[in-house]
Amino acid sequence: KKIVLLPGDGIGQEVIHSAKEILHAVAQEFKHTFTFESHDIGGTAVDLHGTPLPDSTVEACKKADAVLLGAVGGPKWDLNPSHLRPEKGLLGIRKELGLFANLRPIKGFKKLLPSSPLKQEVIEGSDLLIVRELTGGLYFGTPSERRENGNSVVDTLFYTRKEIERIVDKAFQAAMKRKKQLTSVDKANVLESSKLWREIVEEKKAAYPEVVVQHMLVDSTAMKLITNPSQFDVIVTENMFGDILSDEASVLTGSLGMLPSASLRDDGVGLYEPVHGSAPDIAGQGIANPLAMILSAALMLRYSFGLEEEAKLVEDAVQSILDEGYHTPDLKMESGVTVGTSEMTRLIA
Amino acid sequence: KKIVLLPGDGIGQEVIHSAKEILHAVAQEFKHTFTFESHDIGGTAVDLHGTPLPDSTVEACKKADAVLLGAVGGPKWDLNPSHLRPEKGLLGIRKELGLFANLRPIKGFKKLLPSSPLKQEVIEGSDLLIVRELTGGLYFGTPSERRENGNSVVDTLFYTRKEIERIVDKAFQAAMKRKKQLTSVDKANVLESSKLWREIVEEKKAAYPEVVVQHMLVDSTAMKLITNPSQFDVIVTENMFGDILSDEASVLTGSLGMLPSASLRDDGVGLYEPVHGSAPDIAGQGIANPLAMILSAALMLRYSFGLEEEAKLVEDAVQSILDEGYHTPDLKMESGVTVGTSEMTRLIA
Ligand SMILES: CC(C)[C@H](C(=O)O)[C@@H](O)C(=O)O
Ligand SMILES: CC(C)[C@H](C(=O)O)[C@@H](O)C(=O)O
Repeated sequence: KKIVLLPGDGIGQEVIHSAKEILHAVAQEFKHTFTFESHDIGGTAVDLHGTPLPDSTVEACKKADAVLLGAVGGPKWDLNPSHLRPEKGLLGIRKELGLFANLRPIKGFKKLLPSSPLKQEVIEGSDLLIVRELTGGLYFGTPSERRENGNSVVDTLFYTRKEIERIVDKAFQAAMKRKKQLTSVDKANVLESSKLWREIVEEKKAAYPEVVVQHMLVDSTAMKLITNPSQFDVIVTENMFGDILSDEASVLTGSLGMLPSASLRDDGVGLYEPVHGSAPDIAGQGIANPLAMILSAALMLRYSFGLEEEAKLVEDAVQSILDEGYHTPDLKMESGVTVGTSEMTRLIA
Repeated sequence: KKIVLLPGDGIGQEVIHSAKEILHAVAQEFKHTFTFESHDIGGTAVDLHGTPLPDSTVEACKKADAVLLGAVGGPKWDLNPSHLRPEKGLLGIRKELGLFANLRPIKGFKKLLPSSPLKQEVIEGSDLLIVRELTGGLYFGTPSERRENGNSVVDTLFYTRKEIERIVDKAFQAAMKRKKQLTSVDKANVLESSKLWREIVEEKKAAYPEVVVQHMLVDSTAMKLITNPSQFDVIVTENMFGDILSDEASVLTGSLGMLPSASLRDDGVGLYEPVHGSAPDIAGQGIANPLAMILSAALMLRYSFGLEEEAKLVEDAVQSILDEGYHTPDLKMESGVTVGTSEMTRLIA
């Protein structure tokens, strides 16, 4: 299997090594062959190639079976014009590869739940998966421009029926493998696009009769994620709502540094990245938490390579190392041993 | 002062009476003359007039100094076609009156903080004001329609410079009366409209040199509202982001039933309504919590009539009745006396 590594910026450079090391260990144990190739993206690519997404990076990713991405962004590039911002690299590669489905599983680790901002009794038992549409909506619709000499401005929320159908299908399929509960989130009392979205979800129900479907407005969902997160199993929503809700959900368990994500299309090719950012403040110090990156690699084993046993083994390793009390400095535990990036990686490996 | 009452649906019908009673008490105490006129809106208006916003209601509101609204919506009208949905009445009256600024103060009541989903140490000290743009953006932009026989769909996020300037000004003015901290929320790494928004906030800074301004991305704000709500003073944002974030923020203090809102334009005319909905499940039972409605009336005294002392007196009355332990059944208190709508209203009056 051909894996492209895109370390990106900040701690991305460090945690990507951890993922590689874990994948080496998996390859040895199970006699797989993984080949790795590194390419630039984000601010690093701006510095080296004058663009956040060089053609060579796109070409390499297009030939890969899967892509692992560290993180992009940092204050160094914050004042750059739009086309030279690190995020453009991320948005670009998602679009170039056609990765329309962003999956974010959110589940607390017992040892870390005490650092949740929520009361123990509220967060306990939460285990949800957010399925976010990733290549449509306000992010890519045109026109997106200033008008009348900057006296007005427009962005466009555009979806085709096909785009909605395929993401809704992905969500139903995910629900079938979980608790068979799907919450479709929209703003159907205001948006035309949400009305079509809701209709398509209703149409698709017939193909997945075992899944219990509910529709929920985005504002109401923003509330319920906080007051009763354990009511959710799979949530599916459009790009911008998904951006907001998945970030909201990511802080609930108190383990933002632990959350992986997968961006997929229909043929199994995917891009895997931690939910956390590039953390420029701690970059280069050897203390970055590699667990979200390692768990992203586990998602790659599962979704792109169909290696469920291998994926599970990596996830179990993370679980037991945490249970033993080992943790990086960002994770607050009442007791235990604080370790750096490479020691944590060695322990998991 | 001419006040139009729009009870609307569900418990709206009950809590509007409470507001009226409190305003009577204020009028007596301070020798003011308030006149009241009731009109239909929402599902009730659909049933009686075949439209959620009858012309007569619009006309009456246009002649009023201020409008008090109870709540709209209910399962009875959920399957109605778009133009016969209760929400259309609410969206319509905001637009007809040009109420472009929605203000939502969110502050916990000490007695109620224990029912916050957040840990005490996280929520303590939070006191924020969300200023949401209310008559532009995705809610009203055109085109908003299906295309290609329903094979695609579009909504439009449109703003004029003037629309952004006036809401940003309102937010700066609000910040000047508070802790002089303004967080402007956008998605400037993706949306053109957010870039213009950010530029305008930067331009306006000069006119309010005492206000400390920060820009924050909407996804990041969705996180920080939960992990560190007390870092915020005034938040300003566009319509859809404001809808989501203000609802998210509304559950933080554990007193959703207590939150008022004001929708304003530049001449002091305003519409005031509780943040909570029409609660059809408890409507007509005499147990609805009237406090958010009463606090909305207090905002009316302050913002539309400039009666600060009167507003403060109402707010203090609510505070002390709660401190004495009186509460409606929706409010969870460890001890105290549970009372119904009319008894609660009498106590405050
Ligand atoms: C960096 C940014 C453009 C991106 C997005 O909004 O999609 C990020 O917030 C994410 O969620 O992956
Ligand atoms: C009822 C609905 C259209 C409305 C909105 O989205 O503006 C409501 O959620 C609100 O926030 O007042």
